Amino acid sequence: MAAVITAVMIIDCLQYVAPSETVFRQMREGSVDAVHMTVGYHEDFLGVVQNLQDWNAWFERFPDLIHRATTAQDILDAKAKNKTAIMFGLQNPLAIGADLGRIEILHQLGIRFCQITYNQQSLLGAGCFEPVDSGLTAFGREAVSEMNRVGMVVDLSHAGHHTAMDVIAHSHRPVTVTHANPYQWHAAPRNLQPELIKALAQSGGMMGFSLYPHHLADGSDCSMEQFSQMVMELIADHGADMFGFGSDLCQGQPDSVVNWMRNGHWRKVPVPAVAFPDQPKWFKDNRDYPDIAKSLVKNGISSEDVDGIMGKNWMRFIEAAFKPDGKESS
Amino acid sequence: MAAVITAVMIIDCLQYVAPSETVFRQMREGSVDAVHMTVGYHEDFLGVVQNLQDWNAWFERFPDLIHRATTAQDILDAKAKNKTAIMFGLQNPLAIGADLGRIEILHQLGIRFCQITYNQQSLLGAGCFEPVDSGLTAFGREAVSEMNRVGMVVDLSHAGHHTAMDVIAHSHRPVTVTHANPYQWHAAPRNLQPELIKALAQSGGMMGFSLYPHHLADGSDCSMEQFSQMVMELIADHGADMFGFGSDLCQGQPDSVVNWMRNGHWRKVPVPAVAFPDQPKWFKDNRDYPDIAKSLVKNGISSEDVDGIMGKNWMRFIEAAFKPDGKESS
Repeated sequence: MAAVITAVMIIDCLQYVAPSETVFRQMREGSVDAVHMTVGYHEDFLGVVQNLQDWNAWFERFPDLIHRATTAQDILDAKAKNKTAIMFGLQNPLAIGADLGRIEILHQLGIRFCQITYNQQSLLGAGCFEPVDSGLTAFGREAVSEMNRVGMVVDLSHAGHHTAMDVIAHSHRPVTVTHANPYQWHAAPRNLQPELIKALAQSGGMMGFSLYPHHLADGSDCSMEQFSQMVMELIADHGADMFGFGSDLCQGQPDSVVNWMRNGHWRKVPVPAVAFPDQPKWFKDNRDYPDIAKSLVKNGISSEDVDGIMGKNWMRFIEAAFKPDGKESS
Repeated sequence: MAAVITAVMIIDCLQYVAPSETVFRQMREGSVDAVHMTVGYHEDFLGVVQNLQDWNAWFERFPDLIHRATTAQDILDAKAKNKTAIMFGLQNPLAIGADLGRIEILHQLGIRFCQITYNQQSLLGAGCFEPVDSGLTAFGREAVSEMNRVGMVVDLSHAGHHTAMDVIAHSHRPVTVTHANPYQWHAAPRNLQPELIKALAQSGGMMGFSLYPHHLADGSDCSMEQFSQMVMELIADHGADMFGFGSDLCQGQPDSVVNWMRNGHWRKVPVPAVAFPDQPKWFKDNRDYPDIAKSLVKNGISSEDVDGIMGKNWMRFIEAAFKPDGKESS
């Protein structure tokens, strides 16, 4: 079982932790090889640039703990040096504006994941909380094709169902939902309909399991057994290769941040203030990943499948997806 | 003599040509391996980003002619594939604003050269047309150190003499004047005092010969013999290794551009409209480089020195200078 406890790779394909030495050391304690880190919610282009500058300062300050990653090789290099690779992504395409050329610029700045939208309507498509989901827009089709071309992974988390299905039909490269769970397990607007999971599976896409309490059955009280059961049922339907983690961990952020996430600067009257929910007791921070791997095996998932889910599946996906179009298998 | 006509490498370390298929094909006809292309005069950060987007579109359109270069290896790769490597630089640090972190962001966007200023006072230092040259500013010292750290080459072209001398004293990595000639050969404010050329030589810096008529003795009528004589005198004083070309070619730009260069958006009453001067007849465009190499040899410079000046000297400099600080010799 030792091979499982220290899984071959651990990749968390979505976090929004407040960066700190403490968090970086916890990543190392948890043997987390790579994290996809959000660098944009409601920020415009210059706001995203500022967030990247702030990350540059963290890389300069802690070169022994974290490593800026824009290729699969960067992740392997980080692992070889006992560092955690940090990949960048946007939860909102706002920084693109209405300018197709900004996608390659953002890619050149290191952004490797980009959501179609964040909860509401974007210029690309509709969010899962938008009253009407009109699907992928004309600009959205252009943007998805351009992301395909440069090697920026389309992330359907927070998209509306119809918009997400449109993207999968339009994209000629596999796409992701980095952080969500099945709607049939927990009926949250952010979770995924069976049809969408099936379409992801059939198109070579990936789905990352969210560990954010609002996406979990029984919320903060969700047990590891409940979570394992959900994973097992998905594996029974689709095999294990398309699954990984995208925890949505927001460790260290003040509650003002969850309110900013919900309201941005677009609502005159913000929705009532809420606090971040308590994390499930089996996933407080990055240090818990090795035990999660152990528990998944204990609860009946094969060691091989658990290895894939902990990181190998994301690694395989990233290796192809970060390359420019046409170079996936080179 | 054939080895000279097709010199081992041809690098032009400053142009501001209007990009076009015609120009790219001329670069190939001239066997030009790499060009440092200006992507910012009076533009702010977003203006520079727009210029980079425009270049991305050119790379996408002519993948068989030009190749985006951010490392010495990119130049070698371009050469191996019979393409011209395009490196990016700023003639004005305006895009940095007063934000030190912007330097690494611009570096991550592919910028590899940055001038201290463009003719007037910048936040970093004084230009060669500024009434008072107060030298490198406090922020300028920080900015030079940060450029040293990330591997962005400091370019002293258009700087005031005192500012330029300050930079050489402060910088702990070699710096450049990408495009200028000796003041003693042609007394233009943009040309270099002997003290500055000597300081560049002693610090491992590089000087690129400008072929812009205002920087040449007898302007547009400067002969290849006059030019060769100037080069020979410099070699006699300093050896050939610190010299290369930075032609300042502005081919294809309308005369409105030269007026915009001089006035930007900062003068209420622009200086009187001027036109681009005629190029000397031996350097109309990139196709003339092989003949220039031949003429330099004919006029008495050794083949070995000409090979260096045509490109090998810049290549050696770039190989060290584009690496992050401390990795120059790795």
